[in-house]
Amino acid sequence: MYEVCVATSFEAAHRLVGDFGPASRLHGHTYRLEVVVRGERLREDGTLYDIGALQEAVDGIAASLHYRNLDEVPGLSGANTTAEVVASHCWESLAPGLRGRGLSSLTVRIWENPDVYAACEGALE
Amino acid sequence: MYEVCVATSFEAAHRLVGDFGPASRLHGHTYRLEVVVRGERLREDGTLYDIGALQEAVDGIAASLHYRNLDEVPGLSGANTTAEVVASHCWESLAPGLRGRGLSSLTVRIWENPDVYAACEGALE
Amino acid sequence: MYEVCVATSFEAAHRLVGDFGPASRLHGHTYRLEVVVRGERLREDGTLYDIGALQEAVDGIAASLHYRNLDEVPGLSGANTTAEVVASHCWESLAPGLRGRGLSSLTVRIWENPDVYAACEGALE
Repeated sequence: MYEVCVATSFEAAHRLVGDFGPASRLHGHTYRLEVVVRGERLREDGTLYDIGALQEAVDGIAASLHYRNLDEVPGLSGANTTAEVVASHCWESLAPGLRGRGLSSLTVRIWENPDVYAACEGALE
Repeated sequence: MYEVCVATSFEAAHRLVGDFGPASRLHGHTYRLEVVVRGERLREDGTLYDIGALQEAVDGIAASLHYRNLDEVPGLSGANTTAEVVASHCWESLAPGLRGRGLSSLTVRIWENPDVYAACEGALE
Repeated sequence: MYEVCVATSFEAAHRLVGDFGPASRLHGHTYRLEVVVRGERLREDGTLYDIGALQEAVDGIAASLHYRNLDEVPGLSGANTTAEVVASHCWESLAPGLRGRGLSSLTVRIWENPDVYAACEGALE
């Protein structure tokens, strides 16, 4: 099994709704976004998936969240913007462009800081 | 599948018993402890498991090992305190408080330094 | 399930053949090589596999690639030296020495930089 991962970061604000102590105050993080695709076989050019193309997709998602209040981003507003929900949002945004390319699964990891992450993983086919 | 990870660090001494070269001398590490829980579904509040609650549990284990000789810690004394055994000890300490909460598995990773870790993974239900 | 990981780094040049934009120019990376072995049970001495022995094997592979043009390294020349192919090359080099020791699988992760990796995973028995 092969795996390719591309990471980037974005800066965003959010607040949680519910009994989350200080996290229910408006605050923010330097998020790290890690995107991993998996598959069984390499293509003839020795790639599982072109890292440059994956990087473009990942940069696109990061740009849509960068220097924003996540609670107001289309697709997230109305939801509780936990790291799990942000990871799931990125997963849903990335998956359509990755289907039908011989990849078996996609994982999105959202680090809120170097000591905390949430991840969302699912099959691509 | 969702995953939440919380990490922290602790400083401890230990020595290995057996044919482990310099590791059989009393020495120590700045350990990094990473704790990962997994589950299939998010709760209504958008969390798999409250990160604050996980952090408290992880900090509790780390505090029980911080600035100690691992070879003298209850639950570890008498064992060979390899990174695998320390990970297993943390797994056993954390698992009871995480059962029955919709989580499917728990992984504990013990980094002895930024280039070496051992991990212990097991089902929670 | 237990896991042990040892990492190191090496500096090497390479170029990709094909439609890879700037990556088809001769360039290089400070690669990080992470090697992970997995198994079900610890031995009596509390190890899954001796970390010192794994470190020696990993250092050996890294030394064979360090300060080289990967496109000229035996076993890689003629291939497109993508991170996936380099990971696969390291996997093939390491696996024979790890078989028959109670380990179930081996993963090799090749980081081209702190934001990009490819990994190769396979069963050891």
